[in-house]
Amino acid sequence: MKCIVEYAADHPFSLANLPYGSFCTDGDASTRRCGVAIGDWILDLQALALTKFFPVDVVAAEPTLNAFMALDRRTWLAFRQHIQRLLSVGSPLCVDTTITASNVLAGNAASVGRALFVPRLARSTAMCLPCTIGDYTDFYTSLEHATNCGTLIRGPTHALQPNWRHLPVAYHARASSVVVSGTPVRRPVGQILDKPGDAAPIVAPSRRLDFELEVGFFYGGKETQLGERLSPAQAAERVFGAVLLNDWSARDVQTWEYVPLGPFLSKNFATTISAWIVPIHALEPFTCTGYTHDPPLLPYLRDADTTNFDVPLTVAIRPAESTCEYEIISRSSLRHTYYTIRQMIAHHSTTGCPLRAGDLLGTGTLSAPGEQGYGSLLEKCEAGRRPFALAGEERTFLEDGDSVRMSGLVMGEEGHAVGFGECVGCVLPALPL
Amino acid sequence: MKCIVEYAADHPFSLANLPYGSFCTDGDASTRRCGVAIGDWILDLQALALTKFFPVDVVAAEPTLNAFMALDRRTWLAFRQHIQRLLSVGSPLCVDTTITASNVLAGNAASVGRALFVPRLARSTAMCLPCTIGDYTDFYTSLEHATNCGTLIRGPTHALQPNWRHLPVAYHARASSVVVSGTPVRRPVGQILDKPGDAAPIVAPSRRLDFELEVGFFYGGKETQLGERLSPAQAAERVFGAVLLNDWSARDVQTWEYVPLGPFLSKNFATTISAWIVPIHALEPFTCTGYTHDPPLLPYLRDADTTNFDVPLTVAIRPAESTCEYEIISRSSLRHTYYTIRQMIAHHSTTGCPLRAGDLLGTGTLSAPGEQGYGSLLEKCEAGRRPFALAGEERTFLEDGDSVRMSGLVMGEEGHAVGFGECVGCVLPALPL
Repeated sequence: MKCIVEYAADHPFSLANLPYGSFCTDGDASTRRCGVAIGDWILDLQALALTKFFPVDVVAAEPTLNAFMALDRRTWLAFRQHIQRLLSVGSPLCVDTTITASNVLAGNAASVGRALFVPRLARSTAMCLPCTIGDYTDFYTSLEHATNCGTLIRGPTHALQPNWRHLPVAYHARASSVVVSGTPVRRPVGQILDKPGDAAPIVAPSRRLDFELEVGFFYGGKETQLGERLSPAQAAERVFGAVLLNDWSARDVQTWEYVPLGPFLSKNFATTISAWIVPIHALEPFTCTGYTHDPPLLPYLRDADTTNFDVPLTVAIRPAESTCEYEIISRSSLRHTYYTIRQMIAHHSTTGCPLRAGDLLGTGTLSAPGEQGYGSLLEKCEAGRRPFALAGEERTFLEDGDSVRMSGLVMGEEGHAVGFGECVGCVLPALPL
Repeated sequence: MKCIVEYAADHPFSLANLPYGSFCTDGDASTRRCGVAIGDWILDLQALALTKFFPVDVVAAEPTLNAFMALDRRTWLAFRQHIQRLLSVGSPLCVDTTITASNVLAGNAASVGRALFVPRLARSTAMCLPCTIGDYTDFYTSLEHATNCGTLIRGPTHALQPNWRHLPVAYHARASSVVVSGTPVRRPVGQILDKPGDAAPIVAPSRRLDFELEVGFFYGGKETQLGERLSPAQAAERVFGAVLLNDWSARDVQTWEYVPLGPFLSKNFATTISAWIVPIHALEPFTCTGYTHDPPLLPYLRDADTTNFDVPLTVAIRPAESTCEYEIISRSSLRHTYYTIRQMIAHHSTTGCPLRAGDLLGTGTLSAPGEQGYGSLLEKCEAGRRPFALAGEERTFLEDGDSVRMSGLVMGEEGHAVGFGECVGCVLPALPL
């Protein structure tokens, strides 16, 4: 297939990707609508819905993707294939007498009332959250990350807690503070211990602000009912797509607050996701063998499909004062989840908790083996004990003005890349107390 | 004030209460609308909005209360006073030539096209969740409960964790599994240890199903922005009202899964709330002196208003096989939160987490001092070590068929009671694996 839109061979938003997003134009939130990214353009689904080229059984001409995500896997695939045909050479869009891709891209489409394509990178185009997120769950599924963190806290012998190899550990996270890539993140203020071992806390800006490299999967399809359980095979039908996710963390707030009920304010001040949801069908060519589970998993977590997704991921930082570009400080992959997204969903449904289209499930920090693979600064600087070099300076945790950029890209066999684009956030100084 | 609707002196839904709810009729979800409970009747706000008796600046004629909750405290109060006048002797409803309360209650209102009042307890009337819950946070603010649980786990000397007297400990809970009173609750299946000390878990129906007596407060007013902090005084303006909340808990699932990130499946299978939100203005006459904080709280948690609410609460159980009525097994009060709802909200906003109208904040289990005051079975049976008598049987945790009923009622000086009504759930047997 050759696309009617031109883009570089390593462009993340190729014809093999076609990720979904929600955007608005001209600074007007009331224009919010859904689109499909293709190269540096957005195919405007609201505009497309006004033409004869839009399938009647699909709900995608809405401000958010929730209604579309609530359809089923078969419909998602059919719609995707339809959009692929519309964007390929020989497209009905191009033989139509009024709408041709070259007309549209040249801005001549005004003659047909609306342009079908919006320039994705224009100042007048702003990305929104792709959907309304009902509930957001964050897992802890990377063996390397759990081992690294456990070693820092308890030493290498008992790094993993007894439950870790039996279930995908998770906690409920905060939906209201999930923001789209590009949103600045304010350094949080919170209760911390001024010195280790202090009996009483102070309130101060976090001194240990960190990122966590994750991938977030969106649940799609039919809502499960209270009490309903899904097997991993059933769960495979309910994965709509994936985004990059930065689970910003205030480590000093976390250390003080998290006993006994888990992280709260240390995580809920901001979670950044990339703007475009990569459809699960676009990820499926990029699989690898998943982990062997030792000890074996309980039957409800066993899955005939033992594959995982293998998408290389990077984290880069650009300091505020720096004249340099982003410096890559971590290289990992989506493959580093000990449990697959199918197993995470199956486990999530064990006790019968309802899952709804638009629910977000984070993998947890995706650390890879080796020093280049740390998915957080906590691991990279060994909780502050081992500074590292960034743009010629010694660093441990994030400084004000730092921009953190996560990316993920994989090259397909037919020369089409599939990528998440960017998940970016810049650290603003804390507000005065 | 004398009400045009008759009810008993200890009726929870008096003219001094006027709680808000969402209901539907005739088994038709599309009829969902909001109402105000008065005695055994519901004043139908959708129907009222079609008359001249509805204020133009209020959004309450919707399926859920979210839009109304997003207004401000001044508007809530004005609307409440307006409804109070409409329901009092001398009401304009009664001098209107077509709509009179006696006509309406006698079912004669059909002549004006719609009845303003719906029989609350009729089979054809079903309560729904009062609002769409964006995020649900559960606190852990009862000194007695935290002490009792800590003593069971760590012994009396270190019962409270070091952070407990410095901040209201909390975790994010699950919004999708919050259900309205009366919804049956399925015994969850999950990973548990068959015997204490086992290295590997089994999957089985929970053997330690418990309730937790809580009150849930609903956030209302303007949404806070990412990074915005509220003081306790500002937080006081953002409390819309309160419900009873049963935080069902599977203790055996919890013990195994909760390290290190807190409760997950052990809590997310169901949370029951009472159907009617008692307005904060109805609770305000019932205050008491709050806790003295020792050590003193950090400045951001200090509050010139040191009062708390004092509403007596009970928990009763009725076993399936029993011919008896509900047996009260616990007596407590809303006063047993070491931190007030104002402090909970202020703390929640410390790091800048957005709060939105419809967000639910649970107090945590409200245990009172003494053996009659246990707010959970975990405490009452000392984690299974000390069975208690219920309807002539020895009991530890909940059995299939048990119905758990929470109530809360306080008598006002003018002879009007204010109560939450009931928060009820019946335990269904686990589904086969």
